[in-house]
Amino acid sequence: MQLPSVLVLNGPNLNLLGTREPAIYGAQTLSDVEQMCRDAGRRLGLEIDCRQSNAEHQLIDWIHESRTRFDGIVMNPGAYTHTSVAIADAIVGVAKPVIEVHISNVHKREAFRHHSYISPVAESVIIGCGTQGYVLALERMAALLEKKVVK
Amino acid sequence: MQLPSVLVLNGPNLNLLGTREPAIYGAQTLSDVEQMCRDAGRRLGLEIDCRQSNAEHQLIDWIHESRTRFDGIVMNPGAYTHTSVAIADAIVGVAKPVIEVHISNVHKREAFRHHSYISPVAESVIIGCGTQGYVLALERMAALLEKKVVK
Amino acid sequence: MQLPSVLVLNGPNLNLLGTREPAIYGAQTLSDVEQMCRDAGRRLGLEIDCRQSNAEHQLIDWIHESRTRFDGIVMNPGAYTHTSVAIADAIVGVAKPVIEVHISNVHKREAFRHHSYISPVAESVIIGCGTQGYVLALERMAALLEKKVVK
Amino acid sequence: MQLPSVLVLNGPNLNLLGTREPAIYGAQTLSDVEQMCRDAGRRLGLEIDCRQSNAEHQLIDWIHESRTRFDGIVMNPGAYTHTSVAIADAIVGVAKPVIEVHISNVHKREAFRHHSYISPVAESVIIGCGTQGYVLALERMAALLEKKVVK
Amino acid sequence: MQLPSVLVLNGPNLNLLGTREPAIYGAQTLSDVEQMCRDAGRRLGLEIDCRQSNAEHQLIDWIHESRTRFDGIVMNPGAYTHTSVAIADAIVGVAKPVIEVHISNVHKREAFRHHSYISPVAESVIIGCGTQGYVLALERMAALLEKKVVK
Amino acid sequence: MQLPSVLVLNGPNLNLLGTREPAIYGAQTLSDVEQMCRDAGRRLGLEIDCRQSNAEHQLIDWIHESRTRFDGIVMNPGAYTHTSVAIADAIVGVAKPVIEVHISNVHKREAFRHHSYISPVAESVIIGCGTQGYVLALERMAALLEKKVVK
Amino acid sequence: MQLPSVLVLNGPNLNLLGTREPAIYGAQTLSDVEQMCRDAGRRLGLEIDCRQSNAEHQLIDWIHESRTRFDGIVMNPGAYTHTSVAIADAIVGVAKPVIEVHISNVHKREAFRHHSYISPVAESVIIGCGTQGYVLALERMAALLEKKVVK
Amino acid sequence: MQLPSVLVLNGPNLNLLGTREPAIYGAQTLSDVEQMCRDAGRRLGLEIDCRQSNAEHQLIDWIHESRTRFDGIVMNPGAYTHTSVAIADAIVGVAKPVIEVHISNVHKREAFRHHSYISPVAESVIIGCGTQGYVLALERMAALLEKKVVK
Amino acid sequence: MQLPSVLVLNGPNLNLLGTREPAIYGAQTLSDVEQMCRDAGRRLGLEIDCRQSNAEHQLIDWIHESRTRFDGIVMNPGAYTHTSVAIADAIVGVAKPVIEVHISNVHKREAFRHHSYISPVAESVIIGCGTQGYVLALERMAALLEKKVVK
Amino acid sequence: MQLPSVLVLNGPNLNLLGTREPAIYGAQTLSDVEQMCRDAGRRLGLEIDCRQSNAEHQLIDWIHESRTRFDGIVMNPGAYTHTSVAIADAIVGVAKPVIEVHISNVHKREAFRHHSYISPVAESVIIGCGTQGYVLALERMAALLEKKVVK
Amino acid sequence: MQLPSVLVLNGPNLNLLGTREPAIYGAQTLSDVEQMCRDAGRRLGLEIDCRQSNAEHQLIDWIHESRTRFDGIVMNPGAYTHTSVAIADAIVGVAKPVIEVHISNVHKREAFRHHSYISPVAESVIIGCGTQGYVLALERMAALLEKKVVK
Amino acid sequence: MQLPSVLVLNGPNLNLLGTREPAIYGAQTLSDVEQMCRDAGRRLGLEIDCRQSNAEHQLIDWIHESRTRFDGIVMNPGAYTHTSVAIADAIVGVAKPVIEVHISNVHKREAFRHHSYISPVAESVIIGCGTQGYVLALERMAALLEKKVVK
Repeated sequence: MQLPSVLVLNGPNLNLLGTREPAIYGAQTLSDVEQMCRDAGRRLGLEIDCRQSNAEHQLIDWIHESRTRFDGIVMNPGAYTHTSVAIADAIVGVAKPVIEVHISNVHKREAFRHHSYISPVAESVIIGCGTQGYVLALERMAALLEKKVVK
Repeated sequence: MQLPSVLVLNGPNLNLLGTREPAIYGAQTLSDVEQMCRDAGRRLGLEIDCRQSNAEHQLIDWIHESRTRFDGIVMNPGAYTHTSVAIADAIVGVAKPVIEVHISNVHKREAFRHHSYISPVAESVIIGCGTQGYVLALERMAALLEKKVVK
Repeated sequence: MQLPSVLVLNGPNLNLLGTREPAIYGAQTLSDVEQMCRDAGRRLGLEIDCRQSNAEHQLIDWIHESRTRFDGIVMNPGAYTHTSVAIADAIVGVAKPVIEVHISNVHKREAFRHHSYISPVAESVIIGCGTQGYVLALERMAALLEKKVVK
Repeated sequence: MQLPSVLVLNGPNLNLLGTREPAIYGAQTLSDVEQMCRDAGRRLGLEIDCRQSNAEHQLIDWIHESRTRFDGIVMNPGAYTHTSVAIADAIVGVAKPVIEVHISNVHKREAFRHHSYISPVAESVIIGCGTQGYVLALERMAALLEKKVVK
Repeated sequence: MQLPSVLVLNGPNLNLLGTREPAIYGAQTLSDVEQMCRDAGRRLGLEIDCRQSNAEHQLIDWIHESRTRFDGIVMNPGAYTHTSVAIADAIVGVAKPVIEVHISNVHKREAFRHHSYISPVAESVIIGCGTQGYVLALERMAALLEKKVVK
Repeated sequence: MQLPSVLVLNGPNLNLLGTREPAIYGAQTLSDVEQMCRDAGRRLGLEIDCRQSNAEHQLIDWIHESRTRFDGIVMNPGAYTHTSVAIADAIVGVAKPVIEVHISNVHKREAFRHHSYISPVAESVIIGCGTQGYVLALERMAALLEKKVVK
Repeated sequence: MQLPSVLVLNGPNLNLLGTREPAIYGAQTLSDVEQMCRDAGRRLGLEIDCRQSNAEHQLIDWIHESRTRFDGIVMNPGAYTHTSVAIADAIVGVAKPVIEVHISNVHKREAFRHHSYISPVAESVIIGCGTQGYVLALERMAALLEKKVVK
Repeated sequence: MQLPSVLVLNGPNLNLLGTREPAIYGAQTLSDVEQMCRDAGRRLGLEIDCRQSNAEHQLIDWIHESRTRFDGIVMNPGAYTHTSVAIADAIVGVAKPVIEVHISNVHKREAFRHHSYISPVAESVIIGCGTQGYVLALERMAALLEKKVVK
Repeated sequence: MQLPSVLVLNGPNLNLLGTREPAIYGAQTLSDVEQMCRDAGRRLGLEIDCRQSNAEHQLIDWIHESRTRFDGIVMNPGAYTHTSVAIADAIVGVAKPVIEVHISNVHKREAFRHHSYISPVAESVIIGCGTQGYVLALERMAALLEKKVVK
Repeated sequence: MQLPSVLVLNGPNLNLLGTREPAIYGAQTLSDVEQMCRDAGRRLGLEIDCRQSNAEHQLIDWIHESRTRFDGIVMNPGAYTHTSVAIADAIVGVAKPVIEVHISNVHKREAFRHHSYISPVAESVIIGCGTQGYVLALERMAALLEKKVVK
Repeated sequence: MQLPSVLVLNGPNLNLLGTREPAIYGAQTLSDVEQMCRDAGRRLGLEIDCRQSNAEHQLIDWIHESRTRFDGIVMNPGAYTHTSVAIADAIVGVAKPVIEVHISNVHKREAFRHHSYISPVAESVIIGCGTQGYVLALERMAALLEKKVVK
Repeated sequence: MQLPSVLVLNGPNLNLLGTREPAIYGAQTLSDVEQMCRDAGRRLGLEIDCRQSNAEHQLIDWIHESRTRFDGIVMNPGAYTHTSVAIADAIVGVAKPVIEVHISNVHKREAFRHHSYISPVAESVIIGCGTQGYVLALERMAALLEKKVVK
């Protein structure tokens, strides 16, 4: 039996993780986080594929790819959270569950970070849990997919 | 050694859980959710105390009580999320970590539900994970408190 | 055969009726109004239960009580009209018809009184008919409930 | 002794009543409603004159006519509710009591329907009571006029 | 030699002049005002044609008529000032000078009366000079037209 | 077999076409445009009835008439686009497909022209195609009606 | 018998009149305008005192002076129209009639010029009549003062 | 002769005074402040009754009680300042002078703290004078009441 | 003689056409639509080049290419309609006529879809005509280019 | 030992005190108020210097002077409260404590009076205590300066 | 040959330079800056005249003086940037090139500092270059004037 | 000793420089500007690397590259100024000084060009100095880096 597969997607500037504003984003690098996700996937019975891009279109293309390749997406859209209608449309277009993750608590920051184009088209939103947020998102995704597969 | 203790607080109308708008809030009752929290607490090494009130002042009083009695709060402020500066002030006043939980994805609902007075004073926000959101919040709380206790 | 029962609910400061700003609210006391409602109930074949509270949570609790005890609610939410999402959520939670009444014409007053959180979840809204508004609301409620009972 | 006379005025598109969006406006035709008003008038001791027009200026002219011909107006201004300062000015100009009626609950509909130019110049507003709203308005008008006549 | 001709146009509710809110609009009737305009016209060498309508389309038609019949328009658009894009478009369409007159000082009244669709397409605006405002407008119009005719 | 019939409706000031602001609206007169529509109708197998009015109520009455007389409406609502809820309600009331046409590109003009009450209740909107816009609208209407008739 | 006296006040940049943006403000200099005012005063039986300042406080001081020295003020507040609450307060403080004049039609210009702090405390407002606006204002002032003196 | 009596009312979270955010609110406890008020009362010839509640309805009830029991109210409404129309209505309802006190300068804090529902119905507002603000408020109250009693 | 050439440009997510939300966008695939455009081109005497990209910069580059390679652009900018100033600037930079097409009626959807950065720099806008909108746009483009070529 | 010195500054129109709108500002003249301040200074051990100007720049110059000459400022900025960023900048520039005083309760007046540029840079704000507000401000200033001097 | 002459104008509070908020504005005094400007003028072949005033009217008068005396203005309008329409009008009135300079980066500060009335009427704006900004502005001015003189 | 190195970055559509809207952007091509920057670099002792891209992600990648490769960035973000939170985040992430340059005066253009996401994270902003703005930015950068290197 094939495991449900989950795309873990990181958006712009998250390649700087661990180097950029550690007071806000912590000291773990992106590759630490991705390893953490793969570990969690193993524990939760999920196949994990981790990708990062600074390019809006690359993120869109990968979301499109999930139509035939992934069962769900855990996504930290970075700054595109606040500006990309195109990513939100891609999510609606592929009809797979998406869980939005933000490492820092965006509600403690500038007002323009309080609005997300992604949240209304996501299943769930996990904010300010640091990099643990990705793991919590995978736990939720596992629960969501289990039900689907069972059915 | 004493376990870290966590107050699980539910706000107005959450006593109706399981009966009110099941399409939005699911079929579990409040007492199911509270049992689920206590089970998670046992697994995570947290002492759990669950309370619910429809009264803003009761929630404030319990938050105040956490100054000397609890190490953290997992809270679903219900409708007071959008209207209560007083609860937000209480949270700031007691200086304990608070994780805000919403069962449904508030960003798919009316615009006035997109603003939270609690989020800017909370550590983390978990939205739209159904009742599993409480468990995810407790996992995050366990991680937060572990670090504190360790130190 | 049991008569349909209606909860007549008055919110904050309506206990001052007859003493508070008579130019706006008239000279009848709350107990005059409640007697008028019971008289109208007798005429319309409705069992009437009148309650007033200055406490938001008390109003919420009474609305919850209507799930099993009342067939409809006639409610003057007073100032909570403009600030209470929690009362609106309670109304949605119990799924009983609610008719909102305001004694004075709120549209002749401050701008913040022109918005009601209750109106979008109420069946009907009766504004500026003085205390007669309660009687008109009961007439409408009788018509609404008659159809339901008949069916 | 002459009975107090009331003009029952219906604005644009209300001639479609019974055919237009029955889920919102019900199945009664305008002429059913007008008959219902005349019946209520007979019961309440009011002389009733029913008119409908899709033309803003026609409604204004009829309101002007009420200066010498009617003691009060029950009016459903339809869409002009939200756009006509001229009708509101006409009401102020003739200084007769006006009761505004809306068949559907406008607060459950588009945001632009939540503002009324008429409400601040009306005596009372009755919303979402279906076509019974006209009858309730006439009852209120009867009470208002009785006092005037008595004096 | 033919005298320059001016259309004096009054909009909705101005037929009530002298009877409507005399504290705001004064005691002169519309026909007093029109006589005053004709007298001023005689003094200023202007042929005056006075018209009033409560109908937006009638005002538009008369403005259209001015393309071939009048050299300028003095207009009190009444409540249409604040709501009629169509009248403003008509004015632009006929390319004749328009002077907007308001009897009362609209800036002392409700906020919605502070915005005029007409002012940006008018030559001049005269506010709060009572009925004398029409005469002042005709004086300005005479000066405007004199220059044109001379050239 | 009867041809599908289409009402081509022009709103306020469009009678000035060809004379009014030719830089914006072109040099064709309204009767040129109407002839162009009839020609297109002949080519597309549509019976065309062309009407124009400066009166909001007249436009409403003609839309009402379409309930029993026309299969669709091509409409340039002129300035009423931006101010008439009543026309939008009429369109919803008759449940016939409406295609909104604007000769000029309203988005290059004043901000108040960027909002249309008609667009949300129309099938399609064609902007800035000059008078050819009417023909394009008729082509779309032909396609829409063909499907309906076929079914 | 002493003639009523009127202060003609010009605000900032009006000393540039005739040199500044002649397309907007015309070719007359300030001293031409002041002479025109004195001529009009002679004709109207008003004693005229003309002053100009670029300083807000100087204008305030002169308005204060009018309490004991002038019967009315004709004022072009220039740019202070849009920014000076202090001048508006001065006007209210001295309780003399003020007529606000603008040479150009401010409603054809930037949005911030559409709001005036002066208009709500002025008697009248005359806009876009060129320098003739001062003369029209003096005619109105003469009529206003005549009534007062007569009484 | 009976001394004028003043209710000193503290709202939500003020029971934390001295423990909560001392950088903002200072080191004095609520009971220190209340003692300070009673001392000031003795000096000023005022009978002082100090109460605190986190409950909106309790504050409303105490304000109502002042109708027959107190001559004035010195009130720090805490967070309810920004959200409670009901408390403002209670103040209007009892028609006693209220002086609003805020310990910190709310204008240096979040934007939502810049608006007060209480200020427009209060006599006076004293902001950012630390706990001395209560004493200043009592001095003002003494002056206000003296005049009343004298008269 | 060379045919005028037109670039048909589709923006983000339009590669999903036929699979994404068919209730909104219909069942035709992008390649069906492109074939339809080429067919229309043949009929209208236009050389058609069809391209699609999810990348904002790719769309910008292709628009730049049109400076020397195409006579006009028919463009469905997808979600970039609402967020891309850069594409609008590219259009202005190349000074070729652009016709904006939207398959669905964006005015029936979320408020953020009602604003377009492209419309003010486009020649024309065609909304809610389904995939036929591309053909209508090409017809308009043919007319536009014909005039240019002729001249 | 030298007494702490306090500048009492009054802004525009306060020279009219006692003559201007006595219903709002009371019957005391500015010189009465200044005498009252000097008396209070004597009682509180403060050297008082009272100045008034209608000129924004004069107020700025005097605030600058306080850098070397005064220990604190009690200031009623009058209308400049709502419009002067320059005065607020001057206050920040001199780094002396400023207490803002308003005689009337500005929150009962026009909306533009509810915003103060001064409050966020002041220590304290005292509103609606009549002329007694100056004395209360001096009492607070005495307490503030005492601490500083002591240190 | 006469050198082009440039007026270097500093607005309110800039006389405090070097003493006021050095973290924001640096340690140089105004006279250091003016010397730096004169030095730069010598290098760039510009005659420099430096002036500072806290008075809006003085700045206006000096701008007016530039009509006949200066070829360009380098101006730091200080706080008047955000509030003075009168200074902006003066700039337009004299039709000389103005370069606006701000020492600090106003976009890192309060929101009200993000809007400038001067920028839309200035040639250029130089922000956050410290006192070097004046020199950069003079370099730009030299380039601008060179072209003019050359021509 | 190695020279400080500066990345000169140009965003979308700047490759059209010299061809696009010369009235706004001047006649120099991008390669002229880049040569001008290299010349200025030579004069100022800065190593200059010039790059341009229409792609947001390419600009982000290059900014990231500056973490280890450049000492500062001079950037004209073109249209991304107004829409890209991701570029602003990249700037914050690399913690190098950025000077924002705009060739034209954006404050004379559309309102959406008045807001910059880049300005609050930039050191300085230079607007409307034509292509000379790049040189001025390099001069400022040289001064900034000199201090750093020296230290």
